[in-house]
Amino acid sequence: MSLPGRPFDDFRALLPLMPEPDPVALAAVRKRDAELTKPAGSLGRLEEIAEWLAGWQSKATPTCDTPLIAVFAGNHGVAAHGVSAYPTSVTAAMVANFRNGGAAVNQICASFGAGLRVFELALEVPARDFTQGAAMEEQECMATIAFGMEAVAAGCDVLGLGEMGIANTTSAAAIYHALYGGSAADWVGRGTGVDDAGLARKIAAVEAGVALHRAHLDDPLEVLRRLGGREIAAMAGAILAARLTRIPTLLDGYVACAAAAVLHALDPSTLDHCMAAHLSPEGAHGEALRRLDKRPLLDMGMRLGEGSGAALALGLVKAAANCHAGMATFASAQVEGKNA
Amino acid sequence: MSLPGRPFDDFRALLPLMPEPDPVALAAVRKRDAELTKPAGSLGRLEEIAEWLAGWQSKATPTCDTPLIAVFAGNHGVAAHGVSAYPTSVTAAMVANFRNGGAAVNQICASFGAGLRVFELALEVPARDFTQGAAMEEQECMATIAFGMEAVAAGCDVLGLGEMGIANTTSAAAIYHALYGGSAADWVGRGTGVDDAGLARKIAAVEAGVALHRAHLDDPLEVLRRLGGREIAAMAGAILAARLTRIPTLLDGYVACAAAAVLHALDPSTLDHCMAAHLSPEGAHGEALRRLDKRPLLDMGMRLGEGSGAALALGLVKAAANCHAGMATFASAQVEGKNA
Repeated sequence: MSLPGRPFDDFRALLPLMPEPDPVALAAVRKRDAELTKPAGSLGRLEEIAEWLAGWQSKATPTCDTPLIAVFAGNHGVAAHGVSAYPTSVTAAMVANFRNGGAAVNQICASFGAGLRVFELALEVPARDFTQGAAMEEQECMATIAFGMEAVAAGCDVLGLGEMGIANTTSAAAIYHALYGGSAADWVGRGTGVDDAGLARKIAAVEAGVALHRAHLDDPLEVLRRLGGREIAAMAGAILAARLTRIPTLLDGYVACAAAAVLHALDPSTLDHCMAAHLSPEGAHGEALRRLDKRPLLDMGMRLGEGSGAALALGLVKAAANCHAGMATFASAQVEGKNA
Repeated sequence: MSLPGRPFDDFRALLPLMPEPDPVALAAVRKRDAELTKPAGSLGRLEEIAEWLAGWQSKATPTCDTPLIAVFAGNHGVAAHGVSAYPTSVTAAMVANFRNGGAAVNQICASFGAGLRVFELALEVPARDFTQGAAMEEQECMATIAFGMEAVAAGCDVLGLGEMGIANTTSAAAIYHALYGGSAADWVGRGTGVDDAGLARKIAAVEAGVALHRAHLDDPLEVLRRLGGREIAAMAGAILAARLTRIPTLLDGYVACAAAAVLHALDPSTLDHCMAAHLSPEGAHGEALRRLDKRPLLDMGMRLGEGSGAALALGLVKAAANCHAGMATFASAQVEGKNA
């Protein structure tokens, strides 16, 4: 059911409000970076991270003091097609595991002093099977996006986004296939580790979903509503909310980037405040990152989701912020500069 | 001057004493990893790191609680050829900067709670210009290797090795060229940022050094003595000492890997306890890593040396150890396992 007016008008109205990087903070970081006790450019992407932090945080001395990983969890009707190696009960069980500190993302966050917040999205009411109809009603999808926007409003200086949801790599594959074309098989991977028969069922479900909704897929928000799921909608909201509140944002892997891809299809500049935390071996994550024009910080062969890649990249971000803030300058350390 | 007997006999005598990974600890880690609340293999290289730690530490629950970055600093006679963008006074000035906490490696170590020790190797007596003669006498080289071995004896559960020494990328390039052949230009990079004329002087110095010593370069320890420098000899000692005391070791970039390459040429298994922390854009570091059969953990475009890449990789190692030790199991968290 569509609301009066063009679908998702409230959301679209936010796009023109997106801020740009702060040129004053950027200039201050570049000036100080040139004075630090190291050859120009020798810290490579750590320098890029410091500039990214400064520009979006609007701080001449960028920080990674209160980083937060936000994990959104949702369930998926398409799981009924046997597209995951795990039962759907695992979504709720893993949410409990996050709350009890037992998941990988808990340990990685603790390694770097990062906060972790877990948002459960009506797990008892899965997004509808997208091979039968739209995964969400418009109102339901918009409310979930809005929930995602609220979720990150409490404040942090760097945000990482992750997810949990049995069958959500199937939903993500359908989003990529709808946005980028090709064949369903191009976008589908083994997720948590399905066998060949499971992979065939995944491909068939993605093909069926995209075929069913084909007439409506030229609007990226309709792609999200029809083929996505609640955690994907919430991540899309969180990405935009982070932008509006100038929080530099780390995208996690294959599923988180599907939320980013919806925004990118609306307007590529929506992701200017985002870095890709890592490259996952899942499905066509590398190809998705190329479409998003993002070069991943890490390539550790991780395909767990739950924000684990974003959390791991926080270590790099912390080091980058600390180097920029804490290093001596050639003058303060009395180190001679480059030969004339 | 050679000592009585084959050169470096004391050093060679240690090679047969090298321990192997502990199969009991490895088996324990693999068993527990399979029980953790994640799909098998989904933590990618974090799982590889946990196994690496366990095997070498001989601990069923591997740790990264007392990591140490050891930085060795030396000066190089070949600097007189104008092969660096910086004056040789910078080596001592940077050692002071390390001691005062002002360098990048200080900030990165502090980010991950790692210790940092800096070892200054007779900076006032540079290794001799290798285009004129051997960089070190045998006794001098062996004493420096032994110093490097002592330096890491104080204990740590993970070791990272780094260096500082104006002109030492020239020395490292000469070592690679001597060990691996090709042309000097194949192995020489811009180091701290030399211009085209400086690059030509570097290539000429490497060519001249390798030509002068050609008759003696079939012994890797003679390559080290004739073309290396004190910090490179000390790192070679530290790598072997770490092996003998079962400390998993992170190699830093282009220069640290030249020390590793000397050991590898003696016996490839000498580096079994080492991981490559990162890929540097300096010179042919990627090709050197391929020769060493090491896949780098990070590719951040860093070319600073001083152990900065090894220190950054400690964040990954900490996260890997914490995931393995701290995650819940499917049984303890009451999460259902994979579908039958």
